Amino acid sequence: MKLATLANGTRDGRLAVVSRDLAYATDAGGIAKTLQEALDDWTRLAPRLETLAISLEAGSVPRERFREHEALSPLPRAFQWIDGSAYLSHVELVRKARGAAMPPEFFTDPLLYQGGSDAFLAPRAPIRMPDENFGIDFEGEVAVIVKDVPMGADRTEAAASIVLVVIVNDVSLRNLIPAELAKGFGFFQSKPSSAFSPVAVTPDELGIAWDGGRLHLPLLVSRNGVLFGRPDAGAGMNFDFPALIAHAARTRPLGAGTIIGSGTVSNSEADGSPARPVSAGGDGYSCLAEARMVEAMTGGAPATEFLRFGDTVRIEIKNAGGHSVFGAIEQTVEAYGRPVA
Amino acid sequence: MKLATLANGTRDGRLAVVSRDLAYATDAGGIAKTLQEALDDWTRLAPRLETLAISLEAGSVPRERFREHEALSPLPRAFQWIDGSAYLSHVELVRKARGAAMPPEFFTDPLLYQGGSDAFLAPRAPIRMPDENFGIDFEGEVAVIVKDVPMGADRTEAAASIVLVVIVNDVSLRNLIPAELAKGFGFFQSKPSSAFSPVAVTPDELGIAWDGGRLHLPLLVSRNGVLFGRPDAGAGMNFDFPALIAHAARTRPLGAGTIIGSGTVSNSEADGSPARPVSAGGDGYSCLAEARMVEAMTGGAPATEFLRFGDTVRIEIKNAGGHSVFGAIEQTVEAYGRPVA
Repeated sequence: MKLATLANGTRDGRLAVVSRDLAYATDAGGIAKTLQEALDDWTRLAPRLETLAISLEAGSVPRERFREHEALSPLPRAFQWIDGSAYLSHVELVRKARGAAMPPEFFTDPLLYQGGSDAFLAPRAPIRMPDENFGIDFEGEVAVIVKDVPMGADRTEAAASIVLVVIVNDVSLRNLIPAELAKGFGFFQSKPSSAFSPVAVTPDELGIAWDGGRLHLPLLVSRNGVLFGRPDAGAGMNFDFPALIAHAARTRPLGAGTIIGSGTVSNSEADGSPARPVSAGGDGYSCLAEARMVEAMTGGAPATEFLRFGDTVRIEIKNAGGHSVFGAIEQTVEAYGRPVA
Repeated sequence: MKLATLANGTRDGRLAVVSRDLAYATDAGGIAKTLQEALDDWTRLAPRLETLAISLEAGSVPRERFREHEALSPLPRAFQWIDGSAYLSHVELVRKARGAAMPPEFFTDPLLYQGGSDAFLAPRAPIRMPDENFGIDFEGEVAVIVKDVPMGADRTEAAASIVLVVIVNDVSLRNLIPAELAKGFGFFQSKPSSAFSPVAVTPDELGIAWDGGRLHLPLLVSRNGVLFGRPDAGAGMNFDFPALIAHAARTRPLGAGTIIGSGTVSNSEADGSPARPVSAGGDGYSCLAEARMVEAMTGGAPATEFLRFGDTVRIEIKNAGGHSVFGAIEQTVEAYGRPVA
């Protein structure tokens, strides 16, 4: 089943079921007005949504054309967004960038942070920033949405709580990060609003690409129309989603509709060295910071620029048949001008 | 106007207007089903809620007895909970506890973190924890709830966005904090679910105690029925709420219903030295960690124990007339036993 949230002038949009090929949508408001409402009562409502999805595929219910650019993030606002950093090659590279070694416990204790979830961007909405010099970067990630997770959930319960999978652009302001992390309380200003894929899909839609904990498909990231990365989201993810969820639920329950991100998808070469750029025949990167770090390590100085006003980033995942699974995130960076009061 | 959220078996409860003396409540469901719904359309709905509040005071609408222990947190779950650390005497003490000095920029750059907001505890709900040895502590705080704040809001706009004031118990697991902060991404497991006061009040209810940025009343904190702290929430708050809000809104908007906390209310003596305990005639502390730090600084070792199973913490604010303004948070620590699946 594929679900989307369509703009209707409200903060939470309206829930729609989308066809497998992303061509059509049918209103699901008779079952749940919003995706959060569906998640709040998932066990009861998901079978009804599944039935509607089957009817949509069969062409037996009224349908409208699905247009990705009319979709909001599946949860336009959520009660929780937790972002992991599960690809250790990414962690290692960004730490190297600031001269920090990799503590041994990072291989056993997952890294995650509490993100802002009150105002996500739509998948085709511009990234508006007051200052280009913030070091505007994208981070391509996979994320899961869970139903209620009790405090102390183990891996098995955590895995069973996963009901939807999405992709994410976790926008990061690289030049604000060092000073902010130095304060000791984690990210805040350096992590502005994220955007999610037009469509959220149930794990069964992913077939053998989903192993219950990781999504084994390349994440396609391009900048201004040029492929920048195609790392396999299933490779190098040291902590899988059940591990991230169980870690997050150690001292508190996670409410239905909590979104948990993988962190920047990042691969290494077979010999453990950092991925090579796409232009050199490698699988590239799903954030600019990694490219810059690799450049600094090999050529002496970062050459890849952070995003400038007017730049566009596109993030997508295609299945083995070459079809877009989640629809595409495609965002252009724009100068933020304050609305006149 | 005073508002509460009463339990009705749903995740978000039902909105009620509460009388000034906290004796009565009247259902506000005809105006907004939930507090979030009211906040989403505050400019239009607040005047209608105010009218209902006037009718309740006049006894001209149906009313029920208001019972604090039946109230949920005003927002039982919220789209955002941002917690500041605006009382620098607290920051200085907890940093001293781990041998860290106070960086000069801490006096000009507010410290805040993104908290979990998906599952707040009710004001009289137990604090259930799997392990007493987590170093279970309370933190008494004041917080504000805002309507929409645009990205880049200045102090004036930030101040105008404040629509409700509450008090908070920001439960903290002290023994988990050092290792978690050392990872560099801020708090996560060390900050379990917080609880808020039974009632949220509009700033005008606070009279001269509210100066637009700070609440000038003592926060009364007791442990097992014994007064532990009575620090003035208006003193020592180096960054006021408009400053915290503007800082939070620098790179993203804040959605309606965002809650911003002051951080642990903490005062110094007139000479700048740490507050003395209540038992020594001082104003004491609104968290155990400060008492322990002062003991370590003066007596060589912390003597105050963290909360044990069975311990109770009560947090309340009374106005100049001695009446409870927000109702009381009163929580007992209990062992968390996993529900049988």
